[in-house]
Amino acid sequence: MTKIDDLPVRDELRGQSPYGAPQLDVPVQLNTNENPYPLPEPLVARIAERVADAARQLNRYPDRDAVELRAGLAAYLTDTTGHAVTKDQVWAANGSNEVLQQLLQTFGGPGRTAIGFEPSYSMHALIARGTGTAWISGPRNEDFTIDVDAARATIAELRPDVVFICSPNNPTGTAVEADTVLALYEAAQAAKPSMVVVDEAYVEFSHRASLLPLLAGRPNLVVSRTMSKAFGAAGLRLGYLAADPAVVDAVQLVRLPYHLSAVTQATALACLEHTGTLLGYVEQLKSERDRLVVALRELGVEVTDSDANFIQFGRFADTHAVWQAILDQGVLVRDNGVPGWLRVTAGTPAENDAFLGAVSSVIKEL
Amino acid sequence: MTKIDDLPVRDELRGQSPYGAPQLDVPVQLNTNENPYPLPEPLVARIAERVADAARQLNRYPDRDAVELRAGLAAYLTDTTGHAVTKDQVWAANGSNEVLQQLLQTFGGPGRTAIGFEPSYSMHALIARGTGTAWISGPRNEDFTIDVDAARATIAELRPDVVFICSPNNPTGTAVEADTVLALYEAAQAAKPSMVVVDEAYVEFSHRASLLPLLAGRPNLVVSRTMSKAFGAAGLRLGYLAADPAVVDAVQLVRLPYHLSAVTQATALACLEHTGTLLGYVEQLKSERDRLVVALRELGVEVTDSDANFIQFGRFADTHAVWQAILDQGVLVRDNGVPGWLRVTAGTPAENDAFLGAVSSVIKEL
Repeated sequence: MTKIDDLPVRDELRGQSPYGAPQLDVPVQLNTNENPYPLPEPLVARIAERVADAARQLNRYPDRDAVELRAGLAAYLTDTTGHAVTKDQVWAANGSNEVLQQLLQTFGGPGRTAIGFEPSYSMHALIARGTGTAWISGPRNEDFTIDVDAARATIAELRPDVVFICSPNNPTGTAVEADTVLALYEAAQAAKPSMVVVDEAYVEFSHRASLLPLLAGRPNLVVSRTMSKAFGAAGLRLGYLAADPAVVDAVQLVRLPYHLSAVTQATALACLEHTGTLLGYVEQLKSERDRLVVALRELGVEVTDSDANFIQFGRFADTHAVWQAILDQGVLVRDNGVPGWLRVTAGTPAENDAFLGAVSSVIKEL
Repeated sequence: MTKIDDLPVRDELRGQSPYGAPQLDVPVQLNTNENPYPLPEPLVARIAERVADAARQLNRYPDRDAVELRAGLAAYLTDTTGHAVTKDQVWAANGSNEVLQQLLQTFGGPGRTAIGFEPSYSMHALIARGTGTAWISGPRNEDFTIDVDAARATIAELRPDVVFICSPNNPTGTAVEADTVLALYEAAQAAKPSMVVVDEAYVEFSHRASLLPLLAGRPNLVVSRTMSKAFGAAGLRLGYLAADPAVVDAVQLVRLPYHLSAVTQATALACLEHTGTLLGYVEQLKSERDRLVVALRELGVEVTDSDANFIQFGRFADTHAVWQAILDQGVLVRDNGVPGWLRVTAGTPAENDAFLGAVSSVIKEL
């Protein structure tokens, strides 16, 4: 039988395994930051209707520039941030992963470098590698906030072409202050100039406002978003960005033509029609997240302040053993490889109760 | 206003424009090789049903490995080629463009080279550029068949890492003989060894059998396919490949996780259920294609033998003037930049009559 390494694959791929473990079949799955609330039936019906309309023209290529969808996303951003955004400032792709990949193909790539402040979303480094962009792991403080002085010094010294700032940060849940983003943006412009990408995948769950208004007057700043979390549509794979219109023009130089299918565009537009209902679920999840933080602390568990739909908790001498013990109680959480810490997604009240029960019994054994 | 070149884009992107012209709004559009037959209503209803089912779980990530879809595509290939293919030999992505991009990320990339025999599908060279793969333009004969001796010599000399063979070839319509593929495969193995990718996007329209059976015993051979043409689903963006299972494992090292949405998978599965009806449209298009070839030759127009759902016709001293004159009659064809030649897609009988009428009046003026 032929194996990967028998093929003429690139040297850096030899000996590697694909990202992501198989999903375990357990009753309570709180490991991938999914929204636990299924889309409401009226929205399901509207998706079927919109997709049927799209299917009647499926023999034709989709709108290559997804103009209606980008206008809808711009209206959503304007409505929820109070910062006016137009369709010319918005770009969409198959998940924020593809948005980030297109940004790195445009502004990173061979001979260029990107920096992130770790622990952070591991796909930033993986997509950098996939696009031939060298990766720099930047520093964080002990409490997982970004060490601004250290970050500025690293940017000044290493002059990265792309700076990733994840806010709220995955897997720690940490929000980044606007002042921090501004300081890093200025450092990045002084050093190169370079692009600064603020990944706001989880921002709808934050106690704080979006950093989107910082776009004004900053053409090298990009805010990336997703419909996977707040819109409860991880299965849709719809990521987007807001930035100066020139950035939107630039990524069109590298995007594959017709990258976004007509059924994806139709489904996303249906979801946007039901924004109010979906943001209601977000409010429920925020209060469940806050309940989990309080309850974990009452159990004597350490918790990192969270602005996301997940919580980093610890600290454990043997992280894997605790992960396994919680799993043995039927609850799957995530070990992101941060020493001493695990991550749990805020689920339904019943799922969260099951998680708290599992933690309670596990820590008694420690 | 900020422009692309004011941003820190990669040097090779400076001064460029995105691929593809705006679609002109004319009555008869025969310029992008779309299937003119809309999906039948029972299939539209089935898509709505399958997508509604998928939408009820849209809050969860999709099946990352698209197992059910890959099994369905494998069954389709087995049924239509008589060559047994399993799901482990099939991989799917957002359009064959993304399939080809993943192949070049795996087997091409910086420091590596790919070759195609031009004129051919222009995205091969563009995706090579986008992945940092150097591009070699290989030779063709005057009649647009591949010059086997010259191709073998070029492969032996330049030792490309990836060899593209488009059959039927876009934009010429030329099918490639199995013997040619075998000769080039052997040359490529002797030179490097390297991967050979046979792009069969239009093979369902061919007079000849698929080259898929050549996969047996050749782990460095890949056949790429699409649902855009024969399945009448250009708007779906569903491309796939068949190859040794090790190739499928290898592309999973570079694919973005969860690249293929649940709605795309559901829609593609519905289309596969209606294969019989859709292949009936293919038969109609083949006979219309053949009618166009005969009619054009009767008009004294030169035609390249076609195995696709489009036809290359010429030769014209002023290609652009003829393209414009046909457009002035309300029919949009494609100028692919092949000197002296234009390309027309086989449409419905009425569309083809309109095209023939336009050509007839235009050539009287020449």
